[in-house]
Amino acid sequence: MGPGAEHADFHTIDPSKDVDGFGAASVGLLVQNRPKLVACTPSGVIELLQRERIQIAGRHAVVIGRSDIVGKPMAMLLLHLDATVTICHSKTPHLAEVCRQADILVAAVGRPGLVTREFVKPGATVIDVGVNRVSDPAVASRLFPAGHRRLLLFQSKGSVLVGDVHPEVEDVAGALTPVPGGVGPLTITMLMANTLRAARERVR
Amino acid sequence: MGPGAEHADFHTIDPSKDVDGFGAASVGLLVQNRPKLVACTPSGVIELLQRERIQIAGRHAVVIGRSDIVGKPMAMLLLHLDATVTICHSKTPHLAEVCRQADILVAAVGRPGLVTREFVKPGATVIDVGVNRVSDPAVASRLFPAGHRRLLLFQSKGSVLVGDVHPEVEDVAGALTPVPGGVGPLTITMLMANTLRAARERVR
Repeated sequence: MGPGAEHADFHTIDPSKDVDGFGAASVGLLVQNRPKLVACTPSGVIELLQRERIQIAGRHAVVIGRSDIVGKPMAMLLLHLDATVTICHSKTPHLAEVCRQADILVAAVGRPGLVTREFVKPGATVIDVGVNRVSDPAVASRLFPAGHRRLLLFQSKGSVLVGDVHPEVEDVAGALTPVPGGVGPLTITMLMANTLRAARERVR
Repeated sequence: MGPGAEHADFHTIDPSKDVDGFGAASVGLLVQNRPKLVACTPSGVIELLQRERIQIAGRHAVVIGRSDIVGKPMAMLLLHLDATVTICHSKTPHLAEVCRQADILVAAVGRPGLVTREFVKPGATVIDVGVNRVSDPAVASRLFPAGHRRLLLFQSKGSVLVGDVHPEVEDVAGALTPVPGGVGPLTITMLMANTLRAARERVR
């Protein structure tokens, strides 16, 4: 799951042990809606939405980011749950406008605070997949108002973890996952769930 | 490529001979943007767009239909060519409104004349993947005005082939593929191209 993982060749991994869900066969089975082991971050996001009873069917989901690890499998999972799905990326013009259509907005690009208030329809569910370590004071003060608890943390530690979603979105979103402590731990949990599932299949 | 093909299990097909591109491994490689053999209808549509020099990068493409054979691989190919991509389907509310955002609109649902004028932004490129045999006179006369050449054909033959796009869209679209004679023959051509590619790989 480390950086650059999407460029490695997962061909050599036995699909029945592919607990990351990154192999071509795993991805193909997911796209064909007969998944075996599914990538952990997007399946964690679905788990989160379902446990929070956030309606997916018939809603418009917008995914920012088209990575093999998050963006594309995320889009497929949402599609199979009957969302209308839009995939945006660095070449998308009028990004804020496109995102503002979303009932469910998933940000997975790795750019701190990219998703500002103008990206978010009031009441929308916003899932922040980004985990960015910010060490530039200018960036930190763009993200947090003077005296904010996390800006103080930044000043004492020299860096702070922030997502792709600007903290100001909290005032607009109907629901918003925090960074850190939101999608990240879920990814790890889903990896353990996949590992358990693979082990059970092996015993069977 | 017959009806029901998407429900068959393509697991048993050697990926190097999977000229339809329907196997899980072929689909996975496509999604990971390192395609080997790609499903023929969507790759034919890309061929068509590129030969007609229709810009894909930075444009908004809307795909109606989420089949394994057309909708999903089509979305992936457009995404990899830097389009912003929306996938719609039978559960999408306000379908016409969503489609009207498209610079490139691909209809692949199998409902005769579904895409009417109100679905299409003036000047948009419209790709009609549907091939529907209409034998109901009421449907035929909803599609073609009295005295229209194709309505006369229907009256003499008892049926007529129509796409998912209503003929009235011709007046609004910047470009529109005909049915029959548009995407269909291209699909067959791409199947032959895939077969040739597979054979060459085998010899190598």
